[in-house]
Amino acid sequence: MKSFGEFLQSGDWKGEKHVPVIHAPEKVKAGETFDLRVSIGDEIPHPNTLEHYIAWIKVFCFQEGGKFPVEIAEFKFPAHGEGGNFTEPSGTAKVKLDKTGTIHAVSYCNIHGVWENTQEIVVE
Amino acid sequence: MKSFGEFLQSGDWKGEKHVPVIHAPEKVKAGETFDLRVSIGDEIPHPNTLEHYIAWIKVFCFQEGGKFPVEIAEFKFPAHGEGGNFTEPSGTAKVKLDKTGTIHAVSYCNIHGVWENTQEIVVE
Amino acid sequence: MKSFGEFLQSGDWKGEKHVPVIHAPEKVKAGETFDLRVSIGDEIPHPNTLEHYIAWIKVFCFQEGGKFPVEIAEFKFPAHGEGGNFTEPSGTAKVKLDKTGTIHAVSYCNIHGVWENTQEIVVE
Amino acid sequence: MKSFGEFLQSGDWKGEKHVPVIHAPEKVKAGETFDLRVSIGDEIPHPNTLEHYIAWIKVFCFQEGGKFPVEIAEFKFPAHGEGGNFTEPSGTAKVKLDKTGTIHAVSYCNIHGVWENTQEIVVE
Ligand SMILES: [Fe+3]
Ligand SMILES: [Fe+3]
Ligand SMILES: [Fe+3]
Ligand SMILES: [Fe+3]
Repeated sequence: MKSFGEFLQSGDWKGEKHVPVIHAPEKVKAGETFDLRVSIGDEIPHPNTLEHYIAWIKVFCFQEGGKFPVEIAEFKFPAHGEGGNFTEPSGTAKVKLDKTGTIHAVSYCNIHGVWENTQEIVVE
Repeated sequence: MKSFGEFLQSGDWKGEKHVPVIHAPEKVKAGETFDLRVSIGDEIPHPNTLEHYIAWIKVFCFQEGGKFPVEIAEFKFPAHGEGGNFTEPSGTAKVKLDKTGTIHAVSYCNIHGVWENTQEIVVE
Repeated sequence: MKSFGEFLQSGDWKGEKHVPVIHAPEKVKAGETFDLRVSIGDEIPHPNTLEHYIAWIKVFCFQEGGKFPVEIAEFKFPAHGEGGNFTEPSGTAKVKLDKTGTIHAVSYCNIHGVWENTQEIVVE
Repeated sequence: MKSFGEFLQSGDWKGEKHVPVIHAPEKVKAGETFDLRVSIGDEIPHPNTLEHYIAWIKVFCFQEGGKFPVEIAEFKFPAHGEGGNFTEPSGTAKVKLDKTGTIHAVSYCNIHGVWENTQEIVVE
């Protein structure tokens, strides 16, 4: 049985427009709210049309020494030109973390499948 | 038959902590990307616990002279203390609009139901 | 300020293809799991294309004598032809209710806005 | 960099209550609508409380010889006791497929992370 994890694609977001970019501080204080932004296409814009678009990005946090990831944000990008309105694939959440760990962003393009990226974040 | 619309509560967000606050420019240019932030509890924080939390905010745009609202953003706030992680009820999207209209934010508290707020936005 | 509730359209689902249809027993027992299905286009199918589709249906329960509706189901319909795959606008949840009340289904078409329907359900 | 895929847990759903169960015909006809149900805890019920619950199940289809999975269903389970209402972790979608492939269900428990299951489906 093939695992769904094998579909998760990654790469350098500067060259591959589908890879989610994680904008987060390298260090934060435990229990202090900070801005966590994830986006697609910072360098090379991804299409945003009714036929081809980024549908969502989910974000998880996996604590060092922990067992399971916890979902900490979810963004949907619903408008792709309806009435001339567009939601671009970028979302900012306000989160508070408790322990050092890794942030995992997972995104979905309706044509090119699931993509991921990761960034370590030190919680002091 | 009671309409679901009758459940939508509103008020002054400075005195009522459930009302979504819309942070958007008063004027934008047609087709130019701008930051649209919606949040709950800017003045009086809303609880964020496993028992009581803001689950989501949806945002719609209704163009002047239009017929139907178009959904332009959706934020979920999934973490309420799991592993010490919290998602606070604030979300920022990047959107492009085509015509002057009203932004409608609709939010949901798992205990206190659905709330709304509106802001006009002039598109030049 | 126009309320978002004013956008909620309704009608007879036999003649208007956007109105969500609620398939639920008229009576259920308190705390007993039952199937709650909501769908669009039972009589007149709604288009399901990349340009025009039903994006989601949310379901709420409002208890008689209660103050606020509680969200009890959410369905997204993500595939509109990608790779020849389609998600049709129908979703079935398994729910348990505690008290007599009304079920409210709210749906969204990316072109024709938000629609609603309601059904009373007696909980014994 | 650890891939998010490494967090995806699986197993025999008869012994492990988190594994999503896929209820789908083994064979379907191309372009013919059929019921696709996914559920958690068919054998051993999973808790459904405010502190511990299944939050969502997503379903993807990966066509034989294809390159990318396509999302074909998403279910959220929002009620965990609010007002005595509960959404149990089961969802049924109506889908149409074009080609033989594998169905991948991915689920999330707010305490025990992400889980997956797969089933082949022959499209004639
Ligand atoms: Fe793409
Ligand atoms: Fe509240
Ligand atoms: Fe429509
Ligand atoms: Fe669990």
